[in-house]
Amino acid sequence: MNDSFKHHFHQLAQIGALPEGGVSRLAFTPEDKLARSWLLQRMVEAGLSVSTDAAGNIIGRRRGQKELAPVMTGSHIDTVPQGGNYDGAVGVLAGLEVIRRLNRENIQTKRPIDIICFSAEESSRFGMATIGSKAFTGNLDAEKARSLKDKEGVSLYRVLTEAGCTPDDLGHHPTLPVHAFIELHIEQGPVLEACHCPIGVVTSIAAPTRFKVILKGRSDHSGSTPMNMRRDALAGVSELILGVERIASREAGKNTVGTAGYAWAMPGSMNVIPGRVEVGIDIRDINRDDKEKAVKAIKSLMGDIAQKRGLTVSCDQLCHEEPVALSGKMVHLLEKAAHACKLESMRLPSGAGHDAMNMAKITDTGLIFIPSLGGISHNSAEYTPDKDIEAGIKVLHKTLLHLAQE
Amino acid sequence: MNDSFKHHFHQLAQIGALPEGGVSRLAFTPEDKLARSWLLQRMVEAGLSVSTDAAGNIIGRRRGQKELAPVMTGSHIDTVPQGGNYDGAVGVLAGLEVIRRLNRENIQTKRPIDIICFSAEESSRFGMATIGSKAFTGNLDAEKARSLKDKEGVSLYRVLTEAGCTPDDLGHHPTLPVHAFIELHIEQGPVLEACHCPIGVVTSIAAPTRFKVILKGRSDHSGSTPMNMRRDALAGVSELILGVERIASREAGKNTVGTAGYAWAMPGSMNVIPGRVEVGIDIRDINRDDKEKAVKAIKSLMGDIAQKRGLTVSCDQLCHEEPVALSGKMVHLLEKAAHACKLESMRLPSGAGHDAMNMAKITDTGLIFIPSLGGISHNSAEYTPDKDIEAGIKVLHKTLLHLAQE
Repeated sequence: MNDSFKHHFHQLAQIGALPEGGVSRLAFTPEDKLARSWLLQRMVEAGLSVSTDAAGNIIGRRRGQKELAPVMTGSHIDTVPQGGNYDGAVGVLAGLEVIRRLNRENIQTKRPIDIICFSAEESSRFGMATIGSKAFTGNLDAEKARSLKDKEGVSLYRVLTEAGCTPDDLGHHPTLPVHAFIELHIEQGPVLEACHCPIGVVTSIAAPTRFKVILKGRSDHSGSTPMNMRRDALAGVSELILGVERIASREAGKNTVGTAGYAWAMPGSMNVIPGRVEVGIDIRDINRDDKEKAVKAIKSLMGDIAQKRGLTVSCDQLCHEEPVALSGKMVHLLEKAAHACKLESMRLPSGAGHDAMNMAKITDTGLIFIPSLGGISHNSAEYTPDKDIEAGIKVLHKTLLHLAQE
Repeated sequence: MNDSFKHHFHQLAQIGALPEGGVSRLAFTPEDKLARSWLLQRMVEAGLSVSTDAAGNIIGRRRGQKELAPVMTGSHIDTVPQGGNYDGAVGVLAGLEVIRRLNRENIQTKRPIDIICFSAEESSRFGMATIGSKAFTGNLDAEKARSLKDKEGVSLYRVLTEAGCTPDDLGHHPTLPVHAFIELHIEQGPVLEACHCPIGVVTSIAAPTRFKVILKGRSDHSGSTPMNMRRDALAGVSELILGVERIASREAGKNTVGTAGYAWAMPGSMNVIPGRVEVGIDIRDINRDDKEKAVKAIKSLMGDIAQKRGLTVSCDQLCHEEPVALSGKMVHLLEKAAHACKLESMRLPSGAGHDAMNMAKITDTGLIFIPSLGGISHNSAEYTPDKDIEAGIKVLHKTLLHLAQE
């Protein structure tokens, strides 16, 4: 693989690096801001003209011979807490690498090629992910940004303003025309490695339905309250978490997944029965009906648990997105490019959400997966071998060039 | 009830008061320090000579006619997070009220009467409660104080030093002789109210066995990891929490209680399967064998869950205290005093731990309970009517006076 790519990959991995390995580069934190300004420099060095939009998405443009709608590629550089170095970063840096190769070969394209770095792809802070690409595709306005708040009550609107963005402009401008969009991303799952296949061509993306559920019971003394007189919210939430696991595993569809990512017990003290617990639940499927079935079963379970245990339940649906089918044209082009590069490819669905799912609403969109060793992701042990990254860059290069000459 | 008591009760309730009701006056926080210096003033006003010891216990002495071992009463003024106004505070202020009544009636006693305010009774911060009374009775030394750490890694030794205490002196002085100790405390349970009885005479105190349990699995992407390839530590902990509830309710003794007070999931993000969860478990019984049975079953369950789910488990036993039987002499004296005051009394065990359980190791110790409405405690809704507090003060007054003339 090219040395510039490697060099940049290692530099970016230092920003927000953790002593125990991996990286925390949460959206809008100082680490994220530092990484974004580092990226702006790399774009300028590659000869791109750079700009940012109302949501802080960074766009670097390589001019085309004509004033046509651009071909676009990119991903994100923010991470989950204690995340890995590959998720998102590989896609942005691969786009830049393609630009450098085109520059080196002195290739002119008919259309502009844009590298985009979307803001806040991971941001579970506001209970909503892919914030930057939602904004870019016209699906986030100032009002919504005011209503999305983190657990300290700070709004996305305020965070965007403090980051120097202009949230009042969100949704006020027409969506820019984009000729096509391709995202290169690690699979974050075990399928490609298991099939010994370097290139995945994604056909559809599962989109999450997410809930913030609050169960309320009564805080009582853990020593002097008999077991049969308790209204223990954490025991209720435990039943719900096991229910989510059971429903996703056995009672919905074969691809359904359901996860409780956190459970905050209040007051959270060893000698007090928790009187209030908040739990975050994420349900995904590429099949709309199977997802609905899981959502319905989980909602019904919440009510049953609350009634049985004398708890009250409030359930806030943070997002409820539709699974997205990707463009047949792009699936075909990516397969053709892989074949031309003498690389095996296979079609597969994506269980994880990606910026591509928002882009698919405004343009022909393709998503290339490269293998994640052991299927490990959102974890410091996330790893993709260099040769697989190089394979992804080759397919991206070929496809972008084809599209940019259309 | 006496106006001074009420006035002081309301003043103390303001220190650390929360906008939503109740109070947070955690040991060694600025609120606790403020309350302690407020109490010192009140002791001085009541004519007591005051001192503090190596652990920050505050002692106010009303001199006796002879240089004899004192009769002692007291409790604590620190609270759990979002706690109530009665737990602990009533016992300390009731002792002061008795002193004022003795002063008013100009009564001299043979023995000194000491009012003690124990430090850090609630402190689950260091995984150990009744820290002050443990220190006072010679069961906490500097080495142990260095080893007890909060979740930020700050030691009790450091916190004591910063609070102006002298942890190096812990355990270096012989325990002072105490003729007898009586604690007045709210029941924190539902029995007295249900029996329409104003005075509880406690016969034995259940002591907690506490564990900090950490289950480790693997942090993976919540969308792209199939249900059957997960090692979800939060699902494992949920199974453990429900197991603790089941074992305490049905599989150990009739008085066994078991509680999970918190569960911290890491990384704690909506889109990541939790790879590490810490849970705090508290098990209590007044019967030693029944408690052992519960502890054994819970430990065995941890292993089963870990094995079944491919998790690793580490279990740190934070304390393992023996249930304490209180002095027969004191039970008899308290019943006699209640009878003389024309107050109904009943014997009952205490499910909650109290400073009295440590004092019982060095002297004849009695514990008076007064009703908690609805059995509610460790909660802003904690409430005991004035007439019940006055009944408790009367019994305390009569018993202290009797003991101080022995």
